[in-house]
Amino acid sequence: MIKKAINLQEKLGLFSEHWTPKIVAQMNDYHLKLVKLQGDFTWHSHADTDEVFLVVEGAMRIDFRDGPVHLKAGEMYVVPKGVEHKPFAEKECKIMLIETAGTVNTGEAGGNQTAPNDEWI
Amino acid sequence: MIKKAINLQEKLGLFSEHWTPKIVAQMNDYHLKLVKLQGDFTWHSHADTDEVFLVVEGAMRIDFRDGPVHLKAGEMYVVPKGVEHKPFAEKECKIMLIETAGTVNTGEAGGNQTAPNDEWI
Repeated sequence: MIKKAINLQEKLGLFSEHWTPKIVAQMNDYHLKLVKLQGDFTWHSHADTDEVFLVVEGAMRIDFRDGPVHLKAGEMYVVPKGVEHKPFAEKECKIMLIETAGTVNTGEAGGNQTAPNDEWI
Repeated sequence: MIKKAINLQEKLGLFSEHWTPKIVAQMNDYHLKLVKLQGDFTWHSHADTDEVFLVVEGAMRIDFRDGPVHLKAGEMYVVPKGVEHKPFAEKECKIMLIETAGTVNTGEAGGNQTAPNDEWI
């Protein structure tokens, strides 16, 4: 039986909305999620987990209170747990997030950019 | 202060040997590792952790006792804990692994392809 790979571009083609993470895989109690970003997100933090940002296509910035990190395709950054951050993308950017299952995109901040944390594609 | 992104191709340029995972980032108690593969690896399993294979460049195959999965750049697969598998790459393939810190590349199998599990680049 031939098993099926998870193709990131194929999965990215299945949705178009921004700031709504879609789960594509689970590793132990972690989720790997694809997200499309455009514009400003809200300042927030995740008290219980570090969060990996890996850019698949495009470019983005993560602002921290003490300065930014700029990421482009093939680059990643680990946001430490509890650290306030604000993602931003001038043009649409496609990324993979890795974080504990159940993590909410807006963390402790809430607000109208809060998305479901259990949508698989 | 501008923070530095982790650039996968830049990190891959820092070593040339095969089957020797190099840690590039830590997320909670997990390591993200880059590895270059070529040829056959040993059959093995990891009793305590699932293992993510994400192909950065090239193509590879993971054999399982009940069939293979074929992966190329931009594709991933999660090997469940405890499941025997054997990575293979006909030509050099560059991948990222995600697994719990301390995981040994040959798992329970040992042998002369066993590499250090704590090398950062």
